[in-house]
Amino acid sequence: MRFLFSILLLLASSLHLHAQTNKRARELGIHIGVLPTGKWNAITDVPGVKVGQTTLVKGDNIRTGVTAILPHGGNIFQQKVPAAVFVGNGFGKLAGTTQVTELGNLETPVVLTNTLNVATAMDAVIEYTLQQKGNEKIQSVNAVVGETNDGWLNEIRNRPVHKEDVLQAIQSAQTGPVTEGCVGAGTGTVCFGYKGGIGTASRKLPQNLGGYTVGVLVQTNFGGVLEINGAPVGQELGKYDFSDVLNNPVDGSCMIVVATDAPLDSRNLQRLAKRAFMGLAKTGGIASNGSGDYVVAFSSADAVRIPYEADKPVMELPALHNEFVTPLFMAVIEAAEEAIVNSLFAATTTKGKEGHTVEAIPREKVIAILKKYNRIR
Amino acid sequence: MRFLFSILLLLASSLHLHAQTNKRARELGIHIGVLPTGKWNAITDVPGVKVGQTTLVKGDNIRTGVTAILPHGGNIFQQKVPAAVFVGNGFGKLAGTTQVTELGNLETPVVLTNTLNVATAMDAVIEYTLQQKGNEKIQSVNAVVGETNDGWLNEIRNRPVHKEDVLQAIQSAQTGPVTEGCVGAGTGTVCFGYKGGIGTASRKLPQNLGGYTVGVLVQTNFGGVLEINGAPVGQELGKYDFSDVLNNPVDGSCMIVVATDAPLDSRNLQRLAKRAFMGLAKTGGIASNGSGDYVVAFSSADAVRIPYEADKPVMELPALHNEFVTPLFMAVIEAAEEAIVNSLFAATTTKGKEGHTVEAIPREKVIAILKKYNRIR
Amino acid sequence: MRFLFSILLLLASSLHLHAQTNKRARELGIHIGVLPTGKWNAITDVPGVKVGQTTLVKGDNIRTGVTAILPHGGNIFQQKVPAAVFVGNGFGKLAGTTQVTELGNLETPVVLTNTLNVATAMDAVIEYTLQQKGNEKIQSVNAVVGETNDGWLNEIRNRPVHKEDVLQAIQSAQTGPVTEGCVGAGTGTVCFGYKGGIGTASRKLPQNLGGYTVGVLVQTNFGGVLEINGAPVGQELGKYDFSDVLNNPVDGSCMIVVATDAPLDSRNLQRLAKRAFMGLAKTGGIASNGSGDYVVAFSSADAVRIPYEADKPVMELPALHNEFVTPLFMAVIEAAEEAIVNSLFAATTTKGKEGHTVEAIPREKVIAILKKYNRIR
Amino acid sequence: MRFLFSILLLLASSLHLHAQTNKRARELGIHIGVLPTGKWNAITDVPGVKVGQTTLVKGDNIRTGVTAILPHGGNIFQQKVPAAVFVGNGFGKLAGTTQVTELGNLETPVVLTNTLNVATAMDAVIEYTLQQKGNEKIQSVNAVVGETNDGWLNEIRNRPVHKEDVLQAIQSAQTGPVTEGCVGAGTGTVCFGYKGGIGTASRKLPQNLGGYTVGVLVQTNFGGVLEINGAPVGQELGKYDFSDVLNNPVDGSCMIVVATDAPLDSRNLQRLAKRAFMGLAKTGGIASNGSGDYVVAFSSADAVRIPYEADKPVMELPALHNEFVTPLFMAVIEAAEEAIVNSLFAATTTKGKEGHTVEAIPREKVIAILKKYNRIR
Repeated sequence: MRFLFSILLLLASSLHLHAQTNKRARELGIHIGVLPTGKWNAITDVPGVKVGQTTLVKGDNIRTGVTAILPHGGNIFQQKVPAAVFVGNGFGKLAGTTQVTELGNLETPVVLTNTLNVATAMDAVIEYTLQQKGNEKIQSVNAVVGETNDGWLNEIRNRPVHKEDVLQAIQSAQTGPVTEGCVGAGTGTVCFGYKGGIGTASRKLPQNLGGYTVGVLVQTNFGGVLEINGAPVGQELGKYDFSDVLNNPVDGSCMIVVATDAPLDSRNLQRLAKRAFMGLAKTGGIASNGSGDYVVAFSSADAVRIPYEADKPVMELPALHNEFVTPLFMAVIEAAEEAIVNSLFAATTTKGKEGHTVEAIPREKVIAILKKYNRIR
Repeated sequence: MRFLFSILLLLASSLHLHAQTNKRARELGIHIGVLPTGKWNAITDVPGVKVGQTTLVKGDNIRTGVTAILPHGGNIFQQKVPAAVFVGNGFGKLAGTTQVTELGNLETPVVLTNTLNVATAMDAVIEYTLQQKGNEKIQSVNAVVGETNDGWLNEIRNRPVHKEDVLQAIQSAQTGPVTEGCVGAGTGTVCFGYKGGIGTASRKLPQNLGGYTVGVLVQTNFGGVLEINGAPVGQELGKYDFSDVLNNPVDGSCMIVVATDAPLDSRNLQRLAKRAFMGLAKTGGIASNGSGDYVVAFSSADAVRIPYEADKPVMELPALHNEFVTPLFMAVIEAAEEAIVNSLFAATTTKGKEGHTVEAIPREKVIAILKKYNRIR
Repeated sequence: MRFLFSILLLLASSLHLHAQTNKRARELGIHIGVLPTGKWNAITDVPGVKVGQTTLVKGDNIRTGVTAILPHGGNIFQQKVPAAVFVGNGFGKLAGTTQVTELGNLETPVVLTNTLNVATAMDAVIEYTLQQKGNEKIQSVNAVVGETNDGWLNEIRNRPVHKEDVLQAIQSAQTGPVTEGCVGAGTGTVCFGYKGGIGTASRKLPQNLGGYTVGVLVQTNFGGVLEINGAPVGQELGKYDFSDVLNNPVDGSCMIVVATDAPLDSRNLQRLAKRAFMGLAKTGGIASNGSGDYVVAFSSADAVRIPYEADKPVMELPALHNEFVTPLFMAVIEAAEEAIVNSLFAATTTKGKEGHTVEAIPREKVIAILKKYNRIR
Repeated sequence: MRFLFSILLLLASSLHLHAQTNKRARELGIHIGVLPTGKWNAITDVPGVKVGQTTLVKGDNIRTGVTAILPHGGNIFQQKVPAAVFVGNGFGKLAGTTQVTELGNLETPVVLTNTLNVATAMDAVIEYTLQQKGNEKIQSVNAVVGETNDGWLNEIRNRPVHKEDVLQAIQSAQTGPVTEGCVGAGTGTVCFGYKGGIGTASRKLPQNLGGYTVGVLVQTNFGGVLEINGAPVGQELGKYDFSDVLNNPVDGSCMIVVATDAPLDSRNLQRLAKRAFMGLAKTGGIASNGSGDYVVAFSSADAVRIPYEADKPVMELPALHNEFVTPLFMAVIEAAEEAIVNSLFAATTTKGKEGHTVEAIPREKVIAILKKYNRIR
């Protein structure tokens, strides 16, 4: 059974590799914002950050998965990173929020999955952490697990994600380009009435503004009136919340993970997280009642790591002065907007549970709309 | 002295009346969002809401004023309204925030002015409230006063607003169209490097979504990379934060006041307030470090008023079920975006303190840009 | 294996029944506060509220369990209750917090267990909810699960709680007296250096103050300098944080659940929750860095239930006017203090993991101290 | 007029000096908690902290004043200190809260006065700051001003505090012992039905716990059921909220200012602030609906000062590791409790507005009660 499942997983993964030939927004000529991107235009441009994913496509009705973001490649519990959460709309289940807020740090990977498998993912994150070398004595782990609801395409009530799937995502995490679209925790999501998924983007500040990198990864499953680079795509396509054409079937959610190598404390990371939500607004998202819109932000800078066991009571921490954070705010807004758009361009039409089919955005039409509004080069 | 001042005020007002011939965004053919506006496309479309303003233009260096928003025409202290505050960025001095949040209501007009005259305005609001008929015995007043910093054009250190100016704004409040641009608390503000000011807009939901009205009034004084209806105006004009062309002189702020006649409790008003901030994001605002971006939201619906002295311990309050708030969220995003754009189109080039001049947005150029991007009809 | 376990469970339960002969604080003559208690002096005095517990005592090293609190006996998901969370200290993992805060309601039982089994309990709560009649179509469940760390007595890293244990606690929930001490989620906890556990208490307001009942249930696992009814018990016994005599081995936590039949909205429930934390303070708790101190408060009043599927958009909800909540605040402070004290008097000396033994409070000595300070009748 | 007033002020001050012969709690043999005090057992034990007060006793009906706490003797605006606010109950008007929270620092003295003179005090703090050498160009000042309502004894509607009174308090601030009781902002306050006022206390940690000092200053004006060092004084005297004997005339408030020389960031200062509120709970305070209970906490440590104009973007800041903050939590709980008790012992019977008289706590009776409960040496 497990074996069969592995085969399916393999198939799914390889299918996915084929699918992943869609061009990204920027490759299509869509230039969002004014700041340059990092090398991969991905959250992994932030030094140390790794991403791993498990995609579960099984039979007719399982369309879900796991995406794990690791702030660094070491033992995160022993070398915690400053972190913060911003709750855009709290109809959602981001496990671990209160401890991150209280202690100002993150001690595990951030894992994304579907709504009803949050507990599974927490369990896996705890196991992963307990088993890591050096953690033999720890008795408390604050697993940070986010979710969106993929129940339109995925038989979510069966809770098809297993612990092994989560561990696989964590253990396979790597730097470099990140697969986007119908992958990992984005396998079954729906965004603006089209197929959503995983997206990522980054911005690198010029040296005179600090030279820092800000990376964003999103799991898109929300609604509103889609705008791409300011063009009214949702209106043109007649597909949006409360439009006559469509009764939007899902209420959605958006998980946003933000990484930076700027030496920010948890207070300024919370402010950074809030700006990522502004990027979501620019895509036409409306943070509807049923949307769980959360941002987790962390700094992966070496110098700000917080040791689990302090060798001395007082740490000396570099901290960016408030006056210098604004460029990072601008960077994260741009990166969040582009990450969401990337998720849409990468996703492919998906058929799932009960024959439900969610179309990918109609690329040709969208490009035509972007041309009509002069928002593509 | 006071007499002379009155004359100047009169002159300023009349000048202002002349100046106020600028067309509003919608009249120019800029249609933001998908929902219809209220009658005046103003916060005053929400039944009961009144706005009054005092504009102070004196000599070379006084460019400031007061804008007052009254949730209803009665005794607000005796008939409080459900209310909430969302802090977009807290570099600012919104007096009264904590009590609104704790008690979930508003008991005074909301008054906007400049940063260093918040105390003056509080004092005036307190006096206004103490003097109102029926308030002879009250000993506590939670004045809600917001501000932005108009110190580039206005000799703010002189704190030129006086109690009488504030009382005049409150007492002159009326329903109907609201004057926008360089008026009241927007007299000396700067937005996206251009002259900002007061702006307003509204949305009315179709009957099948509740038929409620949402109105927004803004005092714009913030920065970022201006977008109008999705068109990259700031980029095209080469005028934005961190651009090569300009070292943006002010760090700004934006005060947003939201009114609705939907029966929302303070929790859902807080959610509504948060969405108004999403409208700000859509104009290219970045909520920079130095920006005080606050939203005050209240419901003016008769049925949800909270009497100061309860005649019985348990009130029966209508409350919109969570499932039905989403259309209001969409409405407030649209109205906030349009209100900000309206403030820019209404404002006129202003010369003030130390010879500083802030240009109005170059209307012709902006319209040309909007045409280039097909965002104007 | 499971069978053996059931036997052990049975044994544990019966042992427990024998153990539960300790007198409660009030029976001993300790009268905390000035308000009268409800009939059972328990959270179950609040009409509708039920409590169920599973105690796991296995071999030498399993000392843990589950305590479930049901706001009412019906389908909680379909008939949600207004609710709120107050975070005293967020070093802890209260799952479900953000959604309770955002939507202002609770849609599942509140379940307490040990730190590393939160995911197990969430999974069980989700399963319980999905399986309930009428919930066949739901795809999202916000499980509210709290915890404290019983790792000194319990082999917590093995995560010994299973889904069945949680379901058993929920399904066995009943009204009437609540077993206290080393039971359910309190089986392995440590409080002020002594054996802690589950405790409960209630207060009933006189009719002229509304006649409402406030009930509290606690899972005590925290430290500080123990005071009982104001008497300096910790100092007298020389057993407290930073005292010379003892290096307190655990950092603890306290979960507090508050129920009332007063018609409070989520905002006033949040205020009520905050006052329960004041009761904790009065026992000498200090909310140390490592303590996860959370309060979940809900109203079980019939008239304030929130239907999952609204038959009409606007609900008519009774809501206690702010001016009348103060007596409830006083009630919850008293009940929380007494519930904590009850947990200590009920708990019995427990030997667990690695031979660790935690003594019950020395009842005779404590009574002598209370006599010395005239705090017992 | 002003001259006459000065004479009266002088008289009031000298009367006050005579009045101030009451012994403090500790001198009476009341030892609260287990930690040692600082030299003065006052907030001024924290190096750099200064306190200044203006007492206004005029005619039959003016009983109010100002208390100013300066985090250090330099230019606070130029050398900001890390700070945080905890809102115990937000029925109150603590000006400046949101900016302190957003930016994590304090840039002015903290000033306390009566409810309706907050604006006056803000104005004075702004003027003080604008006029300070080095601040010639600044255009924004976040004045932090707290209040309680002394309207039972004081003709508060007249707003008798003037700007000069506030400036005088700030400018006369000094280190060393702090006058307590009916002085400054405590001149007209009522606490537990008795005369309240200003109180202060401090704790000094042993060297092995860091050697840090925590100081607290309170303005007491709240209700509940008074407990002194755990003894049920309110019950014994039959004087408490909802007791048969008394309809408590005021709803009160408590302002708490916390200073420390420990290198805490704003996040940990917020946690420290929350613990001060626990000290209030231990005196029997219940944070009633109408009580504005706020805590402002700051670190005066030299090494954590935040320059207004950063000479470089990245600061190197010492920060106490989370694991080492617990002793500070314990210290602040003790100091807050003792400061409140000190305010009661120092205050004297006061007659004010409309012939209202508020008795000082009956010292002899209280001491007898403390003896009965063995809580005095």
